[in-house]
Amino acid sequence: MPTSAAAPYDPTPRTVPTRARERAAYDRELVHRILDEGYVCHLGFVRDGRPVVLPTLYARVGERLYLHGSTGSRPLRGTGEEPAGLPVCVTVTHLDALVLARSAFHHSVNYRSVVVHGTATPVTGPAEKREALDALVDHVVPGRAADSRRADARELAATAVVALDLVEVSAKVRTGGPNDEARDLSLPHWSGLLPVASVHGVPVPSDDLAPGVPVPDYLTAYARP
Amino acid sequence: MPTSAAAPYDPTPRTVPTRARERAAYDRELVHRILDEGYVCHLGFVRDGRPVVLPTLYARVGERLYLHGSTGSRPLRGTGEEPAGLPVCVTVTHLDALVLARSAFHHSVNYRSVVVHGTATPVTGPAEKREALDALVDHVVPGRAADSRRADARELAATAVVALDLVEVSAKVRTGGPNDEARDLSLPHWSGLLPVASVHGVPVPSDDLAPGVPVPDYLTAYARP
Repeated sequence: MPTSAAAPYDPTPRTVPTRARERAAYDRELVHRILDEGYVCHLGFVRDGRPVVLPTLYARVGERLYLHGSTGSRPLRGTGEEPAGLPVCVTVTHLDALVLARSAFHHSVNYRSVVVHGTATPVTGPAEKREALDALVDHVVPGRAADSRRADARELAATAVVALDLVEVSAKVRTGGPNDEARDLSLPHWSGLLPVASVHGVPVPSDDLAPGVPVPDYLTAYARP
Repeated sequence: MPTSAAAPYDPTPRTVPTRARERAAYDRELVHRILDEGYVCHLGFVRDGRPVVLPTLYARVGERLYLHGSTGSRPLRGTGEEPAGLPVCVTVTHLDALVLARSAFHHSVNYRSVVVHGTATPVTGPAEKREALDALVDHVVPGRAADSRRADARELAATAVVALDLVEVSAKVRTGGPNDEARDLSLPHWSGLLPVASVHGVPVPSDDLAPGVPVPDYLTAYARP
């Protein structure tokens, strides 16, 4: 059944938290915004019955995530020893502030996270793989795919990309100040937020960059969506 | 057999990557430094045979990690329905730079990450739990535990903390500029690094903070180790 772009994701037993349910959200645009703001996810899978969590790069294209699969992970490479589809959990987290309450108990953090459950499948078709790699490069540095040499056939073959559809998805968000107990409000401790952000600095040219190659506009004006 | 503080972690099949082995490291001080610089980890475990990855806060005390366990995770709470010890993978990642090569293929990121495999166990003894909570608060904001109301017995009981010993541990680090192919060096594309960092901003007082409560020194001079 087709769903409109604005329809929320359907909650499932896996995406309804057992605690802090009021922080869970299934809004599609919110999920997309959180995903698009980052480019490093933490990819979890099961190997020999045990959990493995590895950081890797990702990009969203519509309702699909592409993940860079060269993470030392045999299962994701779909070599034939393992099934081509691998159950995964992909989590993206943005930290926004430390929340300092008067009581140690009410200390918290403001954050936005997205958790995606599903089955990752290797991208093997050259056309989709090329599109996925372009998306990965452009998701991290918008404008860069067109300003770099595209992968040739050998490089394409040497790059592992996996796809994960956005079906079983939830966001979790905490905002606002500390929630102190009324009895604690008169305590002498400072309370409030310490904002946190990920920032991108001034581009540093390679040692072997030829003189006269300018820093591209997409780097001097670099900003996440 | 006791090991000196400087002895590296012993590699295991789980901590030797199948790719980019030259980036793997087992140096204890490097691992500690990476862990101490951050405070949000991604915690992976297996639920009903499927991977789950959740962000949570952690602190290192010697060769032990304490994790804030109020993550909506039944298994970590050790309720009795589940075994008290849970196989986990804890991953901490710091992103340092985007690496822009002339070729799309050699694009990369500079990062430092630590992966810990092991069995998380609930901290139930009140003394260790209190110590762990102090460590968590002080790890995120050094100096804050002493400048807040400590948890009372009810709050202690309502807080889940789990411990994970640093035994099966590895770090992975990429540094330096892009590694372009010799044939690509004459291409017209800019190449180099775009630095990335996590920064902490100016403290924002709570709406209900009494006038005259000063911003504590540990916030105005806030810095990660």
